Amino acid sequence: MTKYYLLTPGPTPIPPEVAIKEALPIIHHRTSEFAAIYKNVAEALKGVFRTRNEVYILASSGTGAMEMAVVNLLSPGDEIIVASCGNFGDRWMKIAQGCGLKIISVCVEWGKVVKPHEIEKALKNNPNVKAVYTTFTETSTGVANDIMTIGKIVSKTDAVLVVDAISGLVGQQFETDEWKVDVAVSGSQKGFMLAPGLAFITLSDKAWKLVETSKLPKFYFDIKKYKKSYVTNETPFTPPVTLIVALEESIKFINRRGLENIWIDCKLLAKAARAGMMALGLKLFGEVPCEVVTSALVPIEIGAKIVKVLGEKYGVSVAGGQGDLKGKIIRFAHMGYIGKADLLIGFACLEMVLVELGMKIEKGKAVAAAEEVLLNGL
Amino acid sequence: MTKYYLLTPGPTPIPPEVAIKEALPIIHHRTSEFAAIYKNVAEALKGVFRTRNEVYILASSGTGAMEMAVVNLLSPGDEIIVASCGNFGDRWMKIAQGCGLKIISVCVEWGKVVKPHEIEKALKNNPNVKAVYTTFTETSTGVANDIMTIGKIVSKTDAVLVVDAISGLVGQQFETDEWKVDVAVSGSQKGFMLAPGLAFITLSDKAWKLVETSKLPKFYFDIKKYKKSYVTNETPFTPPVTLIVALEESIKFINRRGLENIWIDCKLLAKAARAGMMALGLKLFGEVPCEVVTSALVPIEIGAKIVKVLGEKYGVSVAGGQGDLKGKIIRFAHMGYIGKADLLIGFACLEMVLVELGMKIEKGKAVAAAEEVLLNGL
Repeated sequence: MTKYYLLTPGPTPIPPEVAIKEALPIIHHRTSEFAAIYKNVAEALKGVFRTRNEVYILASSGTGAMEMAVVNLLSPGDEIIVASCGNFGDRWMKIAQGCGLKIISVCVEWGKVVKPHEIEKALKNNPNVKAVYTTFTETSTGVANDIMTIGKIVSKTDAVLVVDAISGLVGQQFETDEWKVDVAVSGSQKGFMLAPGLAFITLSDKAWKLVETSKLPKFYFDIKKYKKSYVTNETPFTPPVTLIVALEESIKFINRRGLENIWIDCKLLAKAARAGMMALGLKLFGEVPCEVVTSALVPIEIGAKIVKVLGEKYGVSVAGGQGDLKGKIIRFAHMGYIGKADLLIGFACLEMVLVELGMKIEKGKAVAAAEEVLLNGL
Repeated sequence: MTKYYLLTPGPTPIPPEVAIKEALPIIHHRTSEFAAIYKNVAEALKGVFRTRNEVYILASSGTGAMEMAVVNLLSPGDEIIVASCGNFGDRWMKIAQGCGLKIISVCVEWGKVVKPHEIEKALKNNPNVKAVYTTFTETSTGVANDIMTIGKIVSKTDAVLVVDAISGLVGQQFETDEWKVDVAVSGSQKGFMLAPGLAFITLSDKAWKLVETSKLPKFYFDIKKYKKSYVTNETPFTPPVTLIVALEESIKFINRRGLENIWIDCKLLAKAARAGMMALGLKLFGEVPCEVVTSALVPIEIGAKIVKVLGEKYGVSVAGGQGDLKGKIIRFAHMGYIGKADLLIGFACLEMVLVELGMKIEKGKAVAAAEEVLLNGL
């Protein structure tokens, strides 16, 4: 019998009160009952995204919403800037590459953050750029980009700013409207404390103008269809009914705690996670650490083993590195339904695993350092 | 308090034993635990599709898999045949229209079935056609197309046959390999007795050859990514974990009863549904009725009201007509977890609603006619 503890940056644990909603008898999606739920959820999503604009729900992974944010704004030959600092930023690049776009890369080494002044320079040198694509919290490395500053820069131009807020939304302060983000996308399996299967997208008026001229082919991800259905609290294609019913419950959780309080909770957990890693002698990874996931460098000989043994021996799921970072870092998530005690479980088991793998560490030290932060607060 | 009875052609009711799996603590998708579940499910799907080829699972509505079957096979300018007989067949047309393809339409009036010899003629007249797109059971009208005959015709040419088996798979005999279907797609919320959110697709070797030359842009629906991940029992993007865990359970249900027995069950329910409709003096709709949904013409003055009152007063969800058929037909589904008693509930409540709406019918007559069939068998 294995008891599981999820400290991965998506899926994150689901509160039982939310999970059980998925198991209730399913209702049909073209009914007044479902329309009422859909309306509630769509309205609440505006609050979470901090926007006055409509938020659309689609049946896909977060990547589907990213594709939606490319194929609905552009036409073949259009110029865009991609500002990536990790695996998920690079995904913008890969999506765009298949679309016949001219891509100006303002990418930085993984672990660094995107440089707003480089985006500014690229926009000046390329006045025809239609959109700037970047990432809020880059889960693959654990950094957070300065979207507020980037928003100020992009909003002065004709280009729109498109931000992947899949892992950061809910857990860390993100202000779609105030920061002048034109398109923000997210997914259900991170801060929303829900199973994967839903993605979200919202567009500013400035972005909608691009939609009108966009010529890239699309059908399933055609945002005009979603906008049209939104009016009658519907989706253009059969929605994942049980996930949306559960989303209504998880948004109640979020609103009961209050978004601002959740940001503070995650900030504290992040501080504790960093203290725990450092207490073990592990160097933190990432120029500007985000508040939803903490990355630390680990000895390459045991990097992959740490993740494997934590999972198989103790049921603790954490993430390793992706791409070039494979085996070089470990990542602890602390967002959604991950609480203080969960983080301590993670560090306690990590200590045991490091000892087993022959690393010279002092047992209890990471736990003590994390406790210290949790007791003292921010 | 309303108790719901779902007689709609998707979503269909979910067995509680399956639904509860959705509510279990979520596990991470890059673990040996999930890989084992994924492998089981992927293998079992081959059995359900009656194919030796791999079946891929994607996070989307069924329409996503349809788009996948277009963008992965073709390049701009390619010629295709669309053989539609209803709303879902027309969806092939709409997907293709955005892709710059040359579409040869072999469509028939809604309610009729696609004519195999017309497809044969179109293939002769257009030797460059790369693919023929059609529908197995057309849910919008309630007919079943003769895929076996169409398969024989298309297989003699260089074109591939692509079939939307979203509503028909599991409920009615469908033989991907034996009928020479090159691409078959389906979804989770019909015969699979699961919530919407998953789609499935399988390709023959002949179809894979087209994939190699296809130039239409794609990213999220790029089937090569799914094929590559399949090897390690993974998906390219975060899969809807809870739905896949539940799918493992629903496939156990299917295999316990046996696919052939389920086909017989649905055939009997279809016969009973037709008898019930006729007993009420309602004319059956559809040239060749399928075995998963039954359509009947209703007086246009009360058509929309029947669906509304059934739902609001008795909690019975049935489907009305779509497009030009709006208000003209009602549709009772009888697939998945819809049993004999559910069908009788549907007819009993339909009788009450028709009386309330002023139709002169004899109470109990539809129920009696359906019972008669259910007692006597096929």
